[in-house]
Amino acid sequence: MPSPRVLIELPAWVDPFVDWRRRYAEVEERMDLVVALGEEQVRRGTGGPFAAAVFERDTGALVAVGVNLAVPRHNSALHAEVVALMMAEARLQTHSLGAEGIPPHELVSSCEPCAMCLGATLWSGVRRLVAGATKADAESIGYDEGPVFPESYAYLERKGVEVVRGVRREAARALFVAYKAAGGEVY
Amino acid sequence: MPSPRVLIELPAWVDPFVDWRRRYAEVEERMDLVVALGEEQVRRGTGGPFAAAVFERDTGALVAVGVNLAVPRHNSALHAEVVALMMAEARLQTHSLGAEGIPPHELVSSCEPCAMCLGATLWSGVRRLVAGATKADAESIGYDEGPVFPESYAYLERKGVEVVRGVRREAARALFVAYKAAGGEVY
Repeated sequence: MPSPRVLIELPAWVDPFVDWRRRYAEVEERMDLVVALGEEQVRRGTGGPFAAAVFERDTGALVAVGVNLAVPRHNSALHAEVVALMMAEARLQTHSLGAEGIPPHELVSSCEPCAMCLGATLWSGVRRLVAGATKADAESIGYDEGPVFPESYAYLERKGVEVVRGVRREAARALFVAYKAAGGEVY
Repeated sequence: MPSPRVLIELPAWVDPFVDWRRRYAEVEERMDLVVALGEEQVRRGTGGPFAAAVFERDTGALVAVGVNLAVPRHNSALHAEVVALMMAEARLQTHSLGAEGIPPHELVSSCEPCAMCLGATLWSGVRRLVAGATKADAESIGYDEGPVFPESYAYLERKGVEVVRGVRREAARALFVAYKAAGGEVY
């Protein structure tokens, strides 16, 4: 009974959908990309209504993207943030996006992270977390965000992770509405 | 610049090390296996001093195991618990180990989970979490467990996840001492 091999890859539509060469100067532009990924994800039905991306914080260079793949890939850890962080670390071949000698990175997520993703954000070494929709927005359509408290964010900030919330919140929240309207499963 | 593919597999020594057919009746036996995996991990230097396993809670059948692979695999999310849960879900081809029609599962970890793994435990659908060493034990050698609070455990319990802590704590804590003595990196 050998242990399985778990292969994590993005849906085939993702790479051609993204402009990899563009510099995304402002956080709003970065969130626009993330929301667009979420909209396409909902349209194609390839997973939950969440998307994320990792950028170089200061240059706006795009490093990696992620979408929620938990249900289709039978892997409850594959929230968009975890996928994006794994892809970024694989691209740079490092377990820390805050390592010496590489530029500071940030995670941009269509929604405030759940308890797991908030922890994953900390371990990834990103220096900034940018979120769109709020925990309450996600909960309002039935998602559980888990044990995330104000102290959780305070902990992140104390560890040097800047947190910016509510960027393009309405557009990000609309992902949930579109997903529900399309009959998507909230688990 | 296509997105990478992330392949997660256990070190080659793991599968032959484990008795897959045995029924691990008591939680102490289950933790003994987990600690033995952690000891072998430290001896071989294949990652951090943490191990975990997923069992059928009531039969003691072993479903999957995991060890910490974050540094060697350039993937900060690959804590032992996340690896074990991913392996279990891949084996059963489900995003929920608490799904209808399958027996209840439990996660046994050599250490109380960090913030990320506590969240991952919740999303995995396991019905029981069994931990060996404590958060304070991990912190005493320099590991950061992140924003885990008493309310985090209360949240898990409220969602139907039973929590059992301190099983074989001394043996589990000894993993940290052995790892430090072997010159292991605490990051």
